[in-house]
Amino acid sequence: MPVELAAPIETDLLPIGGVRIGVAEAGIRKANRKDLTVFLLDEGCAVGAVFTRNRYAAAPVQVCREHLASEQPIRAMVINTGNANAGTGTSGLANARQTCSALARSLNLHHEQVLPFSTGVIMEPLPMDRLLGGLPAALTHAAQPQHDSGTHWLAAAQGIMTTDTLPKAASVAGTVDGKPVRATGIAKGAGMIRPNMATMLGFLATDAAVSPKAASDLARRLADVSFNRITVDGDTSTNDSFVVVATGRAGNNPIEDIDSPAGKALVSLLAPLAQHLAHAIVRDGEGATKFIAIEVSGGRDAAECLKVAYAVAHSPLVKTAFFASDPNLGRILAAVGYAGVDDLDIVGIDLWLGDVHVVAQGGRHPDYREEDGQRVMKPSQIHVHIGLGRGNASETVWTCDFSHEYVTINADYRS
Amino acid sequence: MPVELAAPIETDLLPIGGVRIGVAEAGIRKANRKDLTVFLLDEGCAVGAVFTRNRYAAAPVQVCREHLASEQPIRAMVINTGNANAGTGTSGLANARQTCSALARSLNLHHEQVLPFSTGVIMEPLPMDRLLGGLPAALTHAAQPQHDSGTHWLAAAQGIMTTDTLPKAASVAGTVDGKPVRATGIAKGAGMIRPNMATMLGFLATDAAVSPKAASDLARRLADVSFNRITVDGDTSTNDSFVVVATGRAGNNPIEDIDSPAGKALVSLLAPLAQHLAHAIVRDGEGATKFIAIEVSGGRDAAECLKVAYAVAHSPLVKTAFFASDPNLGRILAAVGYAGVDDLDIVGIDLWLGDVHVVAQGGRHPDYREEDGQRVMKPSQIHVHIGLGRGNASETVWTCDFSHEYVTINADYRS
Repeated sequence: MPVELAAPIETDLLPIGGVRIGVAEAGIRKANRKDLTVFLLDEGCAVGAVFTRNRYAAAPVQVCREHLASEQPIRAMVINTGNANAGTGTSGLANARQTCSALARSLNLHHEQVLPFSTGVIMEPLPMDRLLGGLPAALTHAAQPQHDSGTHWLAAAQGIMTTDTLPKAASVAGTVDGKPVRATGIAKGAGMIRPNMATMLGFLATDAAVSPKAASDLARRLADVSFNRITVDGDTSTNDSFVVVATGRAGNNPIEDIDSPAGKALVSLLAPLAQHLAHAIVRDGEGATKFIAIEVSGGRDAAECLKVAYAVAHSPLVKTAFFASDPNLGRILAAVGYAGVDDLDIVGIDLWLGDVHVVAQGGRHPDYREEDGQRVMKPSQIHVHIGLGRGNASETVWTCDFSHEYVTINADYRS
Repeated sequence: MPVELAAPIETDLLPIGGVRIGVAEAGIRKANRKDLTVFLLDEGCAVGAVFTRNRYAAAPVQVCREHLASEQPIRAMVINTGNANAGTGTSGLANARQTCSALARSLNLHHEQVLPFSTGVIMEPLPMDRLLGGLPAALTHAAQPQHDSGTHWLAAAQGIMTTDTLPKAASVAGTVDGKPVRATGIAKGAGMIRPNMATMLGFLATDAAVSPKAASDLARRLADVSFNRITVDGDTSTNDSFVVVATGRAGNNPIEDIDSPAGKALVSLLAPLAQHLAHAIVRDGEGATKFIAIEVSGGRDAAECLKVAYAVAHSPLVKTAFFASDPNLGRILAAVGYAGVDDLDIVGIDLWLGDVHVVAQGGRHPDYREEDGQRVMKPSQIHVHIGLGRGNASETVWTCDFSHEYVTINADYRS
């Protein structure tokens, strides 16, 4: 049961001018499910992306990096679920390249203008016959008129799911540089999921005009406040990817610098969308019963705030305590202590659970009563705030609790 | 149910000349259980120790560090279970000091000659009346003759338990520098345990003669092949301590350098004992059903081997796969990939599960059959070997799997 998360409604999803989407049932791993998605991008789109840092980066991630580094503007993306094409060596690379070439041929593009993405089982060969056989149906679907509804975006959100219990999609609209701007995004899956259904994928498109360099910065900036700040079990997939497409149809003066006023306005518009999608992944985390924000303030720099936040977010002891609604201060403080901030003085530590000040000066707050702690641990959404008392940096990460269901899901034999 | 671990037998435990042990029931947290232990050390003993690196080091750990740094030779140790005296601020420090002073007064020692240790609930005041009230009984017990049996060692192993399901103790005997040498050790508890029953403690005494400087090196060297190479859930307690006492009764020429021939002989004799105790902690890990050795070889240095070994040992996805006896290569390789060895070339990776070569050159071994992987994952003890193919360093860490029982234990409300 996802935590406070509902399926997106088709009519809430805004189509983005310059982006056409087609989804097909290619039977890649299972029959009768949407598993192949193409994004077709009009000329003039700028595309930025960030990828997993895992040294076992999957073949499609390697090919994406090559194609983004080439001189060719990106004009299409192809995404399959059911198979991650990871740990597949040189034949996996060849399959990812062949996928791009096949789609490029149909669209009269250069193969480097196509980005490939895969998610699903690891270490099994990509079933190329089924994947390539499904492309015509996806292109036919993409050729349907789609300028006045979110139908195709919802289909794409469904078409990239693995063990997700709900599709994840949302839209925002606002103004940038005096022009109306909209954006729609989809995402899937958290962690390394049963059975090896790896990968977090996020795709966000806006009709704002952005230079190629700024699109790349935009992807990084948005990821750093959303997809790069969530964790379910600490495991980093081989295929994680987040892509931002800017089609330019909004007609604003192209944004060259995301720190310009217009750039900042765009970041402010898109950041909540990226966060919504990232949070949806955590809310739908395996076995999650609670959605937990961990804010660390008062650090000397962002890096040490993140160290502390992740130490708490990854502690199995903290996560099981959240599952039990147990205000277990000792476990949180112990995680703060071993986070790797070597010269941390524990006398500066404060801790709040929700609105309850539970730790002051490194020890139990004199006014803290256990029943107050228990009260704030009951809800399905919990805010933990740790003050380090040594600087002005702050960071927030989001995670979920650790339940019996997590073990059940991940201890299941692969089917 | 601990994994392949039996309770120690009293007659297998060798008393160590120069060490007297007394154990009492002080009622520190629960009535009618051994919870207060004193070690009395004859003059001439050398004592070395290593402690948690957690910044939230508990009060007794802080006092131990001070006392070991003083000029006073250590002559006694006092250990309580039931309360960790951690997260207790200045009053906690005062309580740890008062404990040392009280025991020192009874023994006509300086308070800096006493080392205090605590394990149990965090952030609650140490019940000083009960602790101090129990000291006379512990001293009376220590005054009993104990030179011909392991009764007192077994009582101490019981007296330091928290959620351990079995006491942990063992002995070894051999020769160093032509003299018969023996050693006995006890240990307790793994991880940060219900309900905040924190802490791993290990105490090892040998009758070998060792200089104070070499005793300190010996504690570090032994910890680095035993207690510093085990992990249950990755959480580091506030109270972890490992102490080595060398009484000198064996009559060998005092060892000044643990890398001398006699020093190496002593390390070789004691390392298996320290490992046995450390492994016992993992075997008795919360909810453990499997005992897993993770060996990483072919690294450029020990640090990168440990990074990879711990990334695998801490991955909840790997640990749940072990629980399910699932030879899930993708999860292991993904953990290798995100371990933080930045320039790791995955083409050099080999992986063996038991005697089955499952991954070669970074991909599935051509001869690997899933049924072979399943066969080697069935037993309760599993050896995982990862080859990095880029150097000559190697390291091994030991861990256990991640079961439903772990969540049950740690999600329980504190009693």
